[in-house]
Amino acid sequence: MAGSGEQEALVGNKQVIFKDFVSGFPKESDMFVTTGSVKLKLPEGSRAVLVKNLYLSCDPYMRALMKPQDANYGSVFTSYTPGSPVSGFGVAKVLESGHPDIKEGDLVWGVTTWEEYSVIKAPETLIKIQHTDVPLSYYTGILGMPGMTAYAGFYEVCSPKKGEYVYVSSAAGAVGQLVGQLAKLTGCYVVGSAGSKEKVDLLKNKFGFDEAFNYKEEHDLNAALKRYFPEGIDIYFENVGGKMLDAVLLNMRIHGRIAVCGMISQYNIDKPEGVSNLMNIVYKRVRVEGFVVFDYLQQYSKFLDTLISYIKDGKITYVEDIAEGLESGPAALVGLFSGRNVGKQVVTVSLE
Amino acid sequence: MAGSGEQEALVGNKQVIFKDFVSGFPKESDMFVTTGSVKLKLPEGSRAVLVKNLYLSCDPYMRALMKPQDANYGSVFTSYTPGSPVSGFGVAKVLESGHPDIKEGDLVWGVTTWEEYSVIKAPETLIKIQHTDVPLSYYTGILGMPGMTAYAGFYEVCSPKKGEYVYVSSAAGAVGQLVGQLAKLTGCYVVGSAGSKEKVDLLKNKFGFDEAFNYKEEHDLNAALKRYFPEGIDIYFENVGGKMLDAVLLNMRIHGRIAVCGMISQYNIDKPEGVSNLMNIVYKRVRVEGFVVFDYLQQYSKFLDTLISYIKDGKITYVEDIAEGLESGPAALVGLFSGRNVGKQVVTVSLE
Ligand SMILES: NC(=O)c1ccc[n+]([C@@H]2O[C@H](COP(=O)([O-])OP(=O)(O)OC[C@H]3O[C@@H](n4cnc5c(N)ncnc54)[C@H](OP(=O)(O)O)[C@@H]3O)[C@@H](O)[C@H]2O)c1
Ligand SMILES: NC(=O)c1ccc[n+]([C@@H]2O[C@H](COP(=O)([O-])OP(=O)(O)OC[C@H]3O[C@@H](n4cnc5c(N)ncnc54)[C@H](OP(=O)(O)O)[C@@H]3O)[C@@H](O)[C@H]2O)c1
Repeated sequence: MAGSGEQEALVGNKQVIFKDFVSGFPKESDMFVTTGSVKLKLPEGSRAVLVKNLYLSCDPYMRALMKPQDANYGSVFTSYTPGSPVSGFGVAKVLESGHPDIKEGDLVWGVTTWEEYSVIKAPETLIKIQHTDVPLSYYTGILGMPGMTAYAGFYEVCSPKKGEYVYVSSAAGAVGQLVGQLAKLTGCYVVGSAGSKEKVDLLKNKFGFDEAFNYKEEHDLNAALKRYFPEGIDIYFENVGGKMLDAVLLNMRIHGRIAVCGMISQYNIDKPEGVSNLMNIVYKRVRVEGFVVFDYLQQYSKFLDTLISYIKDGKITYVEDIAEGLESGPAALVGLFSGRNVGKQVVTVSLE
Repeated sequence: MAGSGEQEALVGNKQVIFKDFVSGFPKESDMFVTTGSVKLKLPEGSRAVLVKNLYLSCDPYMRALMKPQDANYGSVFTSYTPGSPVSGFGVAKVLESGHPDIKEGDLVWGVTTWEEYSVIKAPETLIKIQHTDVPLSYYTGILGMPGMTAYAGFYEVCSPKKGEYVYVSSAAGAVGQLVGQLAKLTGCYVVGSAGSKEKVDLLKNKFGFDEAFNYKEEHDLNAALKRYFPEGIDIYFENVGGKMLDAVLLNMRIHGRIAVCGMISQYNIDKPEGVSNLMNIVYKRVRVEGFVVFDYLQQYSKFLDTLISYIKDGKITYVEDIAEGLESGPAALVGLFSGRNVGKQVVTVSLE
């Protein structure tokens, strides 16, 4: 491959390609890994940024992008293009920049593409990483989009008060583990649910939840919630939807709040399950509020300062599940929907 | 019956008796009219109030009281006792009072019993009627509990802004007709739905809704809403639930609000219908908030002043559906659940 002139900069670029729109559960085979090529040089006058991807984030919203564009989520996402690489959040190192605020060598996080090298055409959406005394992968999770989701959802949407009863579903995940810890720091009583014994142990012994249970072992979710919340739930941080939401509605306290972050149990079924116990919203005067992290990005630097100091002071802990190499990306991504990940699911592309 | 001493005060007292707990749609025959007797004199030292009932209110919540007590609505209601008279809101005239703030001849509204004469044991819950230059029956509706519901639900829960798109279901009813008019006074674009051509005409021609439609003639509620709200719905005042709510969720705008007042379409079915389109709460960052009028009673006098002046200035109009006599009570009450009432359903007991 050694050559001269323009060709010198052309290198192999391993990529994860999205095959075609998916219905039902996504499978590893809905993506494939291939090697394209990329010119490690921006065209003259380009305002884009050329990056080397270091860490990629597996996030549940990526499932929605595997469907044809839908007007209902059009305000938030744009679907993937079949035959093109998967995109998602990641941490990357800048190799060349056409943008005045970003320079070679900068570390950034933001939306990138599942490949070794990417040309990012909207570099203004990237956030420069200033604190490098924490693992860089944290910017895909606790210090990135999912962390900001937990923070905004908990403080801005849940209106928490000391002493309140808080329930978090999918509690061992990227968002849930932080929500539970923030709730504990606020002085709440916190119960989490997750899908395995290992995760339940993490919740109780590592993240400091007051109680935790494996929802897969509960035949009657209503009874399980009554057991953990004999006085009812003030705040439900909703990550899963469906039957869990229906059971929670039966257990809300007066003036309770439900922050609707996501409903992962519904993402792979064509017609979402119906939720029936909605009259409890009236009886219990419940506020159910959906939110999208992107509406809170102006709070990012405040969030970052808070979280970095919590992490350094040992007040907050964090568990990641790291898959090595782009080849492991498809399995890691689809694993979110079977609960394979223990903690935040990350894919490493390169260690520097 | 002419006698002397204590017996002089014993008179016939026509009553509507609740037979037994109901499942499915309530029927006229779930109640019966009988004549008991009452002593028109309070016992010595009683702190109760003896009233002559003038107008009784038919309200959808009364259906919930026809079921055995349920912990989920226990914070709001207490079920009827089989074999005892129906209770509900009404307007009454005080014949004798053991309560220091209430005196003979006062007109009051509040919770009473479906009979000619009632002894009200919690007179502190009654509200004295000061403005008698409006029809007294208005205190069962626009100036009573349903009016206060519309006012609190619209101003406190919907957070309305001028120019917003507002949808009201069960719009020709007691609550809905006022919500629509308050929304028009706020400068909103208002569409209502109701179950007959007559009601749709009222909405457009009497209550000043911008548009109205008969939901029973729409096979596809989503399509109907898209027709009336091509730009989506900012505020939904929810009175009916079920399929209508599911269709509304598909049509909410970003940062929309749903004030959950009631879900009458679900009150007569054992297992409420499932609502599926809940992920739109996330995508559109919707706030869904339930409320109960009793939480807002401290605003009653402000509400009353506002409404009385709106009525006198002709800014608000009001339609009642008046059934004559206690005998017509059971049919009037069950008629709410087939939409027989056109406007607020009232039952007259006595005209003075
Ligand atoms: N609104 C926003 O802006 C925003 C932003 C980020 C994330 N979110 C949402 O937040 C939620 C959590 O995201 P995350 O990144 O923290 O993911 P995560 O929890 O790290 O990973 C997903 C987890 O979901 C659980 N799960 C999968 N299928 C399930 C099912 N059918 N029923 C119940 N649980 C199931 C699995 O854990 P178990 O082993 O416990 O089953 C899995 O590990 C998702 O709903 C996501 O869409 C929303
Ligand atoms: N949260 C609170 O504090 C509070 C207080 C008062 C009332 N509410 C609620 O507010 C709502 C309206 O009460 P209201 O007093 O104004 O009653 P209303 O609207 O005067 O009367 C009930 C109306 O509901 C409609 N309806 C009946 N069955 C239906 C069904 N299956 N699907 C759709 N519509 C149906 C009928 O009109 P159509 O001809 O249009 O079908 C009927 O005329 C009810 O849900 C009630 O429970 C709540």
